[in-house]
Amino acid sequence: MKNFDFIPSRGTVTSPKGYKASGIYCGLKRKNKDLCLLVSDSPATVVGMFTSNNVPAHCVVYNKERVQSGRAQALIVNAGNANCCTGQRGWLDNLTIAEKTAALLGLDAGDVLVLSTGVIGEPMPMNKVKNGIAMAVEVLSYDGGVDAARAIMTTDTVPKHFSIELELDGKTCTIGAMAKGSGMIHPNLATMFGIFTTDVAIDRTLLDAAFRDAVNDSFNMMTVDGETSTNDTVLLFANGAAGNSRIIDKNENHAAFAAALKQIAKEAAKAIAEDGEGATKLVTVTVDGAVSKEEAIRAAKSIAKSLLVKTAIFGNDPNWGRVVQSAGASGVQINLQKFGVEFAGVKVAENGGAIPFDREETIQMLKNKNVQIKIDLGAGSISATVFTCDLTYDYVTINAEYHT
Amino acid sequence: MKNFDFIPSRGTVTSPKGYKASGIYCGLKRKNKDLCLLVSDSPATVVGMFTSNNVPAHCVVYNKERVQSGRAQALIVNAGNANCCTGQRGWLDNLTIAEKTAALLGLDAGDVLVLSTGVIGEPMPMNKVKNGIAMAVEVLSYDGGVDAARAIMTTDTVPKHFSIELELDGKTCTIGAMAKGSGMIHPNLATMFGIFTTDVAIDRTLLDAAFRDAVNDSFNMMTVDGETSTNDTVLLFANGAAGNSRIIDKNENHAAFAAALKQIAKEAAKAIAEDGEGATKLVTVTVDGAVSKEEAIRAAKSIAKSLLVKTAIFGNDPNWGRVVQSAGASGVQINLQKFGVEFAGVKVAENGGAIPFDREETIQMLKNKNVQIKIDLGAGSISATVFTCDLTYDYVTINAEYHT
Repeated sequence: MKNFDFIPSRGTVTSPKGYKASGIYCGLKRKNKDLCLLVSDSPATVVGMFTSNNVPAHCVVYNKERVQSGRAQALIVNAGNANCCTGQRGWLDNLTIAEKTAALLGLDAGDVLVLSTGVIGEPMPMNKVKNGIAMAVEVLSYDGGVDAARAIMTTDTVPKHFSIELELDGKTCTIGAMAKGSGMIHPNLATMFGIFTTDVAIDRTLLDAAFRDAVNDSFNMMTVDGETSTNDTVLLFANGAAGNSRIIDKNENHAAFAAALKQIAKEAAKAIAEDGEGATKLVTVTVDGAVSKEEAIRAAKSIAKSLLVKTAIFGNDPNWGRVVQSAGASGVQINLQKFGVEFAGVKVAENGGAIPFDREETIQMLKNKNVQIKIDLGAGSISATVFTCDLTYDYVTINAEYHT
Repeated sequence: MKNFDFIPSRGTVTSPKGYKASGIYCGLKRKNKDLCLLVSDSPATVVGMFTSNNVPAHCVVYNKERVQSGRAQALIVNAGNANCCTGQRGWLDNLTIAEKTAALLGLDAGDVLVLSTGVIGEPMPMNKVKNGIAMAVEVLSYDGGVDAARAIMTTDTVPKHFSIELELDGKTCTIGAMAKGSGMIHPNLATMFGIFTTDVAIDRTLLDAAFRDAVNDSFNMMTVDGETSTNDTVLLFANGAAGNSRIIDKNENHAAFAAALKQIAKEAAKAIAEDGEGATKLVTVTVDGAVSKEEAIRAAKSIAKSLLVKTAIFGNDPNWGRVVQSAGASGVQINLQKFGVEFAGVKVAENGGAIPFDREETIQMLKNKNVQIKIDLGAGSISATVFTCDLTYDYVTINAEYHT
């Protein structure tokens, strides 16, 4: 294996050395696993990014403070209840979850991070959670990654877990990941949950740099419904168990690790978009010809979250005017004499105007599971790509009937 | 009738003195009227507000320039084709429409405004339009307001027309209105079409001041799907035929006119939201306790365009956490110890946390055709109200199958 041959496999967070995990059912959801535990054999270096929502869940406030220390050894995640807008009681429940988990694992409570996802504003049923923590500790396993990925799901239809390997100093190093979230997804710093583990030995500042770069190019370039959750969190644990010589500067090894991390983060983000609530298609929106990176991203996100673009794609309708409308509405610079559009691989506009195209062929192209949309703003030379999904009847069903 | 007794009636743009209108079918839509003509007996003072979309339709560019002159006598509107992204040919087609209309009416082309709405990026079928203009001129009538309102509709399910009367100097003065648009609605300066006529005699600067104030409090406080159209336009014609002594300063008469105009503009905007594509409910979102007007409006619009809030209301689901999530995502100041929420008239959160509430009663309240959502951010003392609708299966149907 050479340094740069990245072969993503369908691995898990327990693919790297020295991580155990479990996923069990404790009664927070009607059925299906709802409590996940991840533990490193030794204290890990940890970095995180969190939602910018001004109404953060208790777990976000807690983890933000804990991650400052740079060290963690375990993570307990529940699905079904967000423990957000639950007042002082919710804060105490969050502490109790950390303390109970730590006590059973023989750790300091400060080394346990906590994540919650689900309904906002309802108190956490703590008896169920406490029993669940005991069960989760009991079945911890070096093969528990798939169970863990299943236990963090809410309206996701498939568990999302990955791993990637790279060679550093002759040692095989691994990054594992799991992710969840298929609604309330329009990240602003990070999205729902992305949880990464690695056995690479690396300085925390360099870990953080690679992590932020990877998240900005993956989770922050993905939208399902334009909503920014109160609980969004991405975490990365690095326990150094691979035995490589610790990465302490921005050398070739750091570059290789950063590239591998970015690749697995992109796979995780695309998997979330593809499994967006009700989605039938993964939609890739590329904006070229922008005057700045900020404007390229702004236009691409505007198109990617446009209800009219997303419903057109669901309906296999080559209504590219909606793409132009959405780019225009984002307020970015567009050259009206030069812009062009490609819709599902078919060139439909150039020099700022409609051109004849084969409507039937385009409709056939739109029936693919992966749809590409490209617009060249004709104003500059900067590009950005954002991932999203189509908007379907099932999105309405899922969200009109989520609670009742 | 006293000065301030405003009695809105189901009038039209021909309710004020000195306006004729017509609405006919010329083949731009599959069926139903699609060409509207409005003519004042004498040149009118005109003011307008236009979309901020960076890809404006040809008619928007044309009207912006024409409205600068402050004078217009006729308006020709087609529905079915937006004449946007149609290149140089589209610009020439727009001029031809103005010139043909002017010639048949015996006016200068410069006194004719043009509006288009419909599909983006397809060339205007000019033969149909030219024949239509001749037909529309032929059937112009002082009672043509309802036909006109029908002819500007696209996916609207009902025509929207109104009038309001007020007494100035012992003279009965009238404001008439028609509006259209039920998708691609998230105004940014103005929305789809709002067309106002009045017979009040008033100085243009004072007309403009009343107009901008009314539009900002009505069309700019309404959203259907978060999309900003390429063709959004609001126009107001004032021909002075009522015979009041011309309003030349900000006196009591100006205040009365401005209040009447604001009231009819709000009725028109609410009618658009209520008839939003696929909508079953009119939703009124009020934000209190903001630190500034800008933040109050920002939070209210974020909630009003939230897919999760709109699908919850469609499903009669008292999932108020989505309201808080959306307010938080808008980035405005929120006091986490003080905020409170009322959902369909039921208090569901206060002091920043959930409180017990009667879920069944709230579900019943949500089944009403008008749903109120209130959030007090607890951070200041400023309020704002925005109108929207729920998000339904029919929205997806309409927009997935619009073209094909």
